[in-house]
Amino acid sequence: MKVHYECFTCIANQCKKIVEMGTEDLEKRKRAMFLAAKTVAREYHEDAIPAIAGSKVFLELYRFLENDDPFREYKEKSRKVAEKVVKLLRDRLDISIKTAIKLAIIGNIIDFSVGFSPENLERQVEEMLKEGLYMDESEELIESVKRAKVILYLTDNVGEHYFDAILLEKIKEISSAEIYIAGKEGPIINDVTVEDLRRDGFEKFGKIISTGTRIVGVPLDKISEEFREIFKKADIIIAKGQGNFETLSEIKDERVFFLLKAKCPAVARGLGVPQGALVCKRNT
Amino acid sequence: MKVHYECFTCIANQCKKIVEMGTEDLEKRKRAMFLAAKTVAREYHEDAIPAIAGSKVFLELYRFLENDDPFREYKEKSRKVAEKVVKLLRDRLDISIKTAIKLAIIGNIIDFSVGFSPENLERQVEEMLKEGLYMDESEELIESVKRAKVILYLTDNVGEHYFDAILLEKIKEISSAEIYIAGKEGPIINDVTVEDLRRDGFEKFGKIISTGTRIVGVPLDKISEEFREIFKKADIIIAKGQGNFETLSEIKDERVFFLLKAKCPAVARGLGVPQGALVCKRNT
Repeated sequence: MKVHYECFTCIANQCKKIVEMGTEDLEKRKRAMFLAAKTVAREYHEDAIPAIAGSKVFLELYRFLENDDPFREYKEKSRKVAEKVVKLLRDRLDISIKTAIKLAIIGNIIDFSVGFSPENLERQVEEMLKEGLYMDESEELIESVKRAKVILYLTDNVGEHYFDAILLEKIKEISSAEIYIAGKEGPIINDVTVEDLRRDGFEKFGKIISTGTRIVGVPLDKISEEFREIFKKADIIIAKGQGNFETLSEIKDERVFFLLKAKCPAVARGLGVPQGALVCKRNT
Repeated sequence: MKVHYECFTCIANQCKKIVEMGTEDLEKRKRAMFLAAKTVAREYHEDAIPAIAGSKVFLELYRFLENDDPFREYKEKSRKVAEKVVKLLRDRLDISIKTAIKLAIIGNIIDFSVGFSPENLERQVEEMLKEGLYMDESEELIESVKRAKVILYLTDNVGEHYFDAILLEKIKEISSAEIYIAGKEGPIINDVTVEDLRRDGFEKFGKIISTGTRIVGVPLDKISEEFREIFKKADIIIAKGQGNFETLSEIKDERVFFLLKAKCPAVARGLGVPQGALVCKRNT
């Protein structure tokens, strides 16, 4: 998906939050915002993909701020809250593979880019559990999982990955496929890194791999050769969240299933769903 | 006052609202935002004054959108609500010159740039009437008004000018000065134009003049010769709102009194007051 009219201010507003998290020094913040203005103007154009344009801008800000992970605290908070909420869900719900798919989609509300506050997670999960999926191709996903020999699971945000763990468990119950779980090569906004996956024990679900880049989503000209090989050989690719949608909707690859909440107006428009819709959709 | 770190996103977010008000066409909105990104990057720099940088960007958007006044509806709504609220205030309050100064400051909450919704005016005015001025040099202003031979009154936003009318009435009661009331040369965001002042009968308070430019505030290299003459000869200058503060705080001119609500963090910081403070302050 290419940029929409809303992406300029969305990226700019994320820059402001990054700068605020990155330094208390007002003069440095201002100089960082001069850089942000120039960088956004360069990256926001007709052919740009929002996730890629944003990542490039943010990484330049990280360098300027000499802060390689301004989201450390935000991610830590998300992690703690999500861990607690997922534990409650496991105790309370009888989780089928269908429920697990829904929970993995619900977990996608944890998203810095749309201003999500981790504090509200439990209440929001409760509300969304009552909601149906607006686009529901989960039966097709389940059948594909059963038949697959190689599954690639593309994670999205920290905290959300505890919800992914539920789905990965269920996938292992119904499939004997080789499973790869991908994280980013290093910190970028609140995305899950390979280090996060290792630390949180995702080896028990499959092989942890890096996309080979810190750019959000799957930027096909930036991924590592190792990742590209796995991407090629996978029978199905489960792509969580907006960044993976933005990058992979550009290639019409039927192996990809998008699992996300369409939080921003651009992605909702790109998918043809109302803003806020819960979506499980094959890339066709 | 030069730009602060917050001004980039503030100007960018105003662009988005302007584009949304200016056209329903998504493709045109997107192209307008490409232009906005480039223009903001050009105008947002170390020496820029926010009101001037913003105005230049907005006027380029107006031209691109082929819409010379995207705020027509917003201003009409502000006008109606303010007229009603000011009528209620006149019926209810015994208005002294001091109260009139406070009301003129309170009227400054009507401001598009900070996302003000005209619907909430009455309730907000009620709340602020209970509040004191955080900086109160109104005694000095009153004394200066009494002594002045020429007074220049710089208006700010549409709707707010009904509050200004109360103060102008009171000024006429205590002063025999020649009074000039300035509006913008043409539409720019929700600022009062000379046309607005004529239409709403401000001749009864003094001579209506144009700053000679559509740029917000008093950009000294853009004002007309006629306005410059009056600006020079005035004994006191009553400058309403953030735009006039941003431009005139750059010259240390003691004839200027700033009357405003410090709505944005940059202006509050520039004045050394908490955000939201009501201010009547001499420019020293």
